[in-house]
Amino acid sequence: MALIVKKFGGSSVATTEKIKAVARRVLDGMKPEDKVVVVVSAMGDTTDDLIELARGIDKNPYHYAREMDMLLTTGEQVSIALLAMAFCSMGHKAISLTGAMVGMGTNSVHTKGRIVGIEPKRVEEALNEGNIVVVAGFQGADSFGDPVTLGRGGSDTSAVALAGALAADSCEIFTDVDGIYSADPRLVQGARKMQEITYDEMLEMARLGAGVMQPRSVEMGKHFGIPIHVRSTFTEKTGTMIREAYTMEEKDFEIRGLAHDDKVAKLAVMGVPNQPGVAHSLFSALADANVSVDMIVQSVRNIEHNVTDMVFTVAVDDLETAREIVEDVKKKLNAVSVLVEENVAKVSIVGVGMLGNPGIAARMFGALQKADVNIDIISTSEISISCLITKDKLKEAANAIHDEFFPRD
Amino acid sequence: MALIVKKFGGSSVATTEKIKAVARRVLDGMKPEDKVVVVVSAMGDTTDDLIELARGIDKNPYHYAREMDMLLTTGEQVSIALLAMAFCSMGHKAISLTGAMVGMGTNSVHTKGRIVGIEPKRVEEALNEGNIVVVAGFQGADSFGDPVTLGRGGSDTSAVALAGALAADSCEIFTDVDGIYSADPRLVQGARKMQEITYDEMLEMARLGAGVMQPRSVEMGKHFGIPIHVRSTFTEKTGTMIREAYTMEEKDFEIRGLAHDDKVAKLAVMGVPNQPGVAHSLFSALADANVSVDMIVQSVRNIEHNVTDMVFTVAVDDLETAREIVEDVKKKLNAVSVLVEENVAKVSIVGVGMLGNPGIAARMFGALQKADVNIDIISTSEISISCLITKDKLKEAANAIHDEFFPRD
Repeated sequence: MALIVKKFGGSSVATTEKIKAVARRVLDGMKPEDKVVVVVSAMGDTTDDLIELARGIDKNPYHYAREMDMLLTTGEQVSIALLAMAFCSMGHKAISLTGAMVGMGTNSVHTKGRIVGIEPKRVEEALNEGNIVVVAGFQGADSFGDPVTLGRGGSDTSAVALAGALAADSCEIFTDVDGIYSADPRLVQGARKMQEITYDEMLEMARLGAGVMQPRSVEMGKHFGIPIHVRSTFTEKTGTMIREAYTMEEKDFEIRGLAHDDKVAKLAVMGVPNQPGVAHSLFSALADANVSVDMIVQSVRNIEHNVTDMVFTVAVDDLETAREIVEDVKKKLNAVSVLVEENVAKVSIVGVGMLGNPGIAARMFGALQKADVNIDIISTSEISISCLITKDKLKEAANAIHDEFFPRD
Repeated sequence: MALIVKKFGGSSVATTEKIKAVARRVLDGMKPEDKVVVVVSAMGDTTDDLIELARGIDKNPYHYAREMDMLLTTGEQVSIALLAMAFCSMGHKAISLTGAMVGMGTNSVHTKGRIVGIEPKRVEEALNEGNIVVVAGFQGADSFGDPVTLGRGGSDTSAVALAGALAADSCEIFTDVDGIYSADPRLVQGARKMQEITYDEMLEMARLGAGVMQPRSVEMGKHFGIPIHVRSTFTEKTGTMIREAYTMEEKDFEIRGLAHDDKVAKLAVMGVPNQPGVAHSLFSALADANVSVDMIVQSVRNIEHNVTDMVFTVAVDDLETAREIVEDVKKKLNAVSVLVEENVAKVSIVGVGMLGNPGIAARMFGALQKADVNIDIISTSEISISCLITKDKLKEAANAIHDEFFPRD
């Protein structure tokens, strides 16, 4: 007997036909003695459609975060009901459970909830009664019983966390690519599939925008020691295993992979009087509003007038909130102006020990130059280098960098 | 201070613009000291769209009633989130609560749940904190915490029951007509608005298909003694009060009103051996499946062979379930055939003491004859007469009967 948690994303359940295909696939791969939990996301673009609907009420609906969660959690509720029906209509007992029902306890930071504890008693009962248990990803409930979403991509986190709480044998993440690639194959020609990747490397890739796995889900896997198998919804092929350490030797690339993020926006507060506490007042206001700031550059523009420019990036979803805060801070600090730029993207390379080799950064910048891509901001971590560039140039930039480090055969 | 429960139906909240209009209307009519609960249905055709979606999984999704409820309850969850956002964006505190959250306890008869008790503690708390409380109609939760819907039109029931449990001063049902009419004005020219109607009369009208109010909501109003004000979403005009007794004298019409129901279907089991227990085995099987049977006719077709035909009507929503049961019973009873007719509608007249005046029935049949409408089945109650006719003829039939009893000026 194996207890397996399988997670299917929104594109795998985008239509009722696809939902039936998911059900068939799960049933085909199931031994009679297996216990199976299926975690699903909202169908296709449902979440985006719901956000768009909320914008019909208020242009910045995330102001009303509790109500956004009330709204958004319906997306997965629809898909779990339909998938459970599909199992039943194929003759297998099944039951759908929302995040609240599976005991997925979260804090009360609506739209960006974090899991604080899982009590999956009802899941265990339902499994013992012979059900396939279909669980709504991306959501839990806080101590008031109010629905709370885990932020974009939270379904992966739900799945891995639930696998951990159930002490499952493995967690399979079904997606529209057949594993983890050295870059997003939709963007970069010649991207290569990896057989294995460690939690830590995957974390850095994911943090920098590699869309296949959400960083939190990888952290969760690391925490519980649950091997995560990332594989295709559409083929039977083995995908990529994310685990603590390599079980086999893979060819040692100079960098591990390339990540990109085109859901970023740049904000700049121009002409801020250069005095102590300026950065603090700006970034603490953003932190209070739960806005994560990514790349930060402070430059002294005009020494004579002692003013500085503060430039930073945020996720596009946070842009409206950030813009209002920044406008406020601008007034308080008596700054000159606020600039917002949405036509930006971040491209990053990841590799352990990269910083010991300064030639890597030079080669990245050289590849961008050859591709005629301007670099707007550079930031580095222990194992990565990121460049903010014009969004229009993302594809050329990513391909140029990838070709530099992963020459095509 | 008044505590008022207001209920807005699906057509009143069909778009985000309409949702904002509802919010403005509630705020305009609200005194600062008032406590207001707003019960809403799913937006526009959402419920039908969700049912259609489920049909993509299985042509008879009501087989999986628990999952249907999981699916359908998302409809109201979307509208409460959006309406609460609309109140907030207009500067008033508001909070949305699902049926489960307002303590709307139901039995576990999925898709046709009945309210077994309400513990609206959270509603009271939220009202005391100064919120407008936006509640999902049509839904509650059973003892497992699973969502259960109250059947079509259940939002009215939710609203009146909640008004009762909160000991509200009144319950206002906002709808797309401006009150209760002597017939559906969309169907019958010259239909007249009533200022008042008693619970009992309204019940009979509603039972026979007058779509404005669901019978259970009227029963609930009668039970709690909550006056129900049925009024238009779009005008400020007073509508129709449903209460225990008249507070003023209205002109004494010969009949109180005309009701119709075009969501019925006729089933016939032909050539059933005429022996004791036949009706019992058929109708108990239907009852076990929670299918309500309306008009029943048993006729001896062929005395020589001692066989009979059993003809009855069910709600269209129950047709698939009923059909399967009837096919089963047909085999068991060795009947000849099963006929299904969907092109039927029921037209009824309601009036206290009608049966004491046999001329009323004759005039109804005469009006139908003049309009060249065949009568398929006739059934009567103490205060009503109903005729099953061809659906295509419904409009002519209803107008002919109405003209007979409510001559136009």
